[in-house]
Amino acid sequence: MTTLLPPAIGLFDSGVGGLTVMQELMRVLPYERLIYFGDTARVPYGNKSPETVVRYSIENTICLLEKNIKLLVVACNTASAHALAKLRLLFNIPIIGVIEPGAEKAVAVSRNQHIAVLGTKGTIQSGAYQEAILKRAPNAVIFPVACPLFVPLVEEQWLHHPASALIVREYLQPLRDQEIDTLLLGCTHYPLLKTIIQQEMGDQVTLVDSASTCVEQVAQLLQQSQALATTFQGKPHYYTSDDPDKFRVLGERLFGYQLDAVEFLSPDRFI
Amino acid sequence: MTTLLPPAIGLFDSGVGGLTVMQELMRVLPYERLIYFGDTARVPYGNKSPETVVRYSIENTICLLEKNIKLLVVACNTASAHALAKLRLLFNIPIIGVIEPGAEKAVAVSRNQHIAVLGTKGTIQSGAYQEAILKRAPNAVIFPVACPLFVPLVEEQWLHHPASALIVREYLQPLRDQEIDTLLLGCTHYPLLKTIIQQEMGDQVTLVDSASTCVEQVAQLLQQSQALATTFQGKPHYYTSDDPDKFRVLGERLFGYQLDAVEFLSPDRFI
Repeated sequence: MTTLLPPAIGLFDSGVGGLTVMQELMRVLPYERLIYFGDTARVPYGNKSPETVVRYSIENTICLLEKNIKLLVVACNTASAHALAKLRLLFNIPIIGVIEPGAEKAVAVSRNQHIAVLGTKGTIQSGAYQEAILKRAPNAVIFPVACPLFVPLVEEQWLHHPASALIVREYLQPLRDQEIDTLLLGCTHYPLLKTIIQQEMGDQVTLVDSASTCVEQVAQLLQQSQALATTFQGKPHYYTSDDPDKFRVLGERLFGYQLDAVEFLSPDRFI
Repeated sequence: MTTLLPPAIGLFDSGVGGLTVMQELMRVLPYERLIYFGDTARVPYGNKSPETVVRYSIENTICLLEKNIKLLVVACNTASAHALAKLRLLFNIPIIGVIEPGAEKAVAVSRNQHIAVLGTKGTIQSGAYQEAILKRAPNAVIFPVACPLFVPLVEEQWLHHPASALIVREYLQPLRDQEIDTLLLGCTHYPLLKTIIQQEMGDQVTLVDSASTCVEQVAQLLQQSQALATTFQGKPHYYTSDDPDKFRVLGERLFGYQLDAVEFLSPDRFI
């Protein structure tokens, strides 16, 4: 597809969760044109098989490439865990996931290297976070916990509900008395449950997520390759594979900023 | 596709929930060959738009037609609510959903016609149950409640967990003091939460689901059209759009019977 627009930074996530990364990109790189794709017709990814997540990730990437992007952010932990290597093999643009940045942040923040990692079933079972942390801190003691009900709770906006607190308590039970000082929120939805997770873990535990480190890496990479925008390149644009209105309403409610220009785009019609 | 196998009864659901209907079919029509398709790569349907659910339902139906079916059961409430009319318009075989049978059962069971209907967001918002009940009992007072967290709770097998009880209590709160005598479980996953729903509603409320009435209708229709199998036509077969092993393990765990012959089938590769 030919276009007169300057190349953009593309992001995809299974749904609205990746808007945590989008927000940070808008803050740090306000000149860049940003294109977000949320695969709400096939959400969630967290309990689907690696093969299916890889296929969806390839389709999403092709959709974004057709929109003229210069760099791809896989703003979904499950897709980063299962598909990043494959995407890098297939596609000829720089691709940044959220696993490596999250691991880097956690290792930098932790003093005793007792690190808990919360994520979807897919992310935790892949072992991607465990591997990325051990690469940086070979003596780290890692406590991975799959929390499959967190995404539905966030999508229901039960962010402070007593039932959510009970569910958080149940999942975090194995982390008690493990001298954990750092907890990595390994899913882009989880920062929205920060308050009750922090309450359960206590103030001595630092919660970290991937967004800030991921965006730092994007900025660095663009700078190194002299592809950083120096003038305003255009407003952010959102695509979604299910109803654009539902995407906009849920995204605005969860993240508290206005989502203009949301359009429908179906990745499984593409290839 | 040509085949030497006798025509089967096809069923589809977004995931494993429709196995409630499958079990009842196996019990009542043991001679029939049954083909089940669970769209686990795109599950859940309950919070997706009508347009997306219609598209998925069309694709699933085409997959099953290619397997040589004589009758289709839409064993998913959300798909029945959004897509049944469209499927009947498009395809040239008898199609039975779960909404009409569920409504029929509820109206037959209720004495005071104060009927609660639990379902996914999509099912409740469609108004399909409300319409089907009022058609049969114009003076019925209907209390529809969307319970979007029930499916994730079932898939997590938190069937008796205190957090599940809290969530059930929260959703059923508006049903107190409404003199409800019948509660319709308008999602194929919900019968698995029967115990805690019954506890919350009390013994005077009768819980009903669609499975038995739906299967009665299937038997009637096949009998009327003289298409009922009179000798054993072959073992049940299962297809799923995500990992067959995961489907088998979850299905067996939730429903307690053995699922042989689970195969992968991708409906979005088809048309």
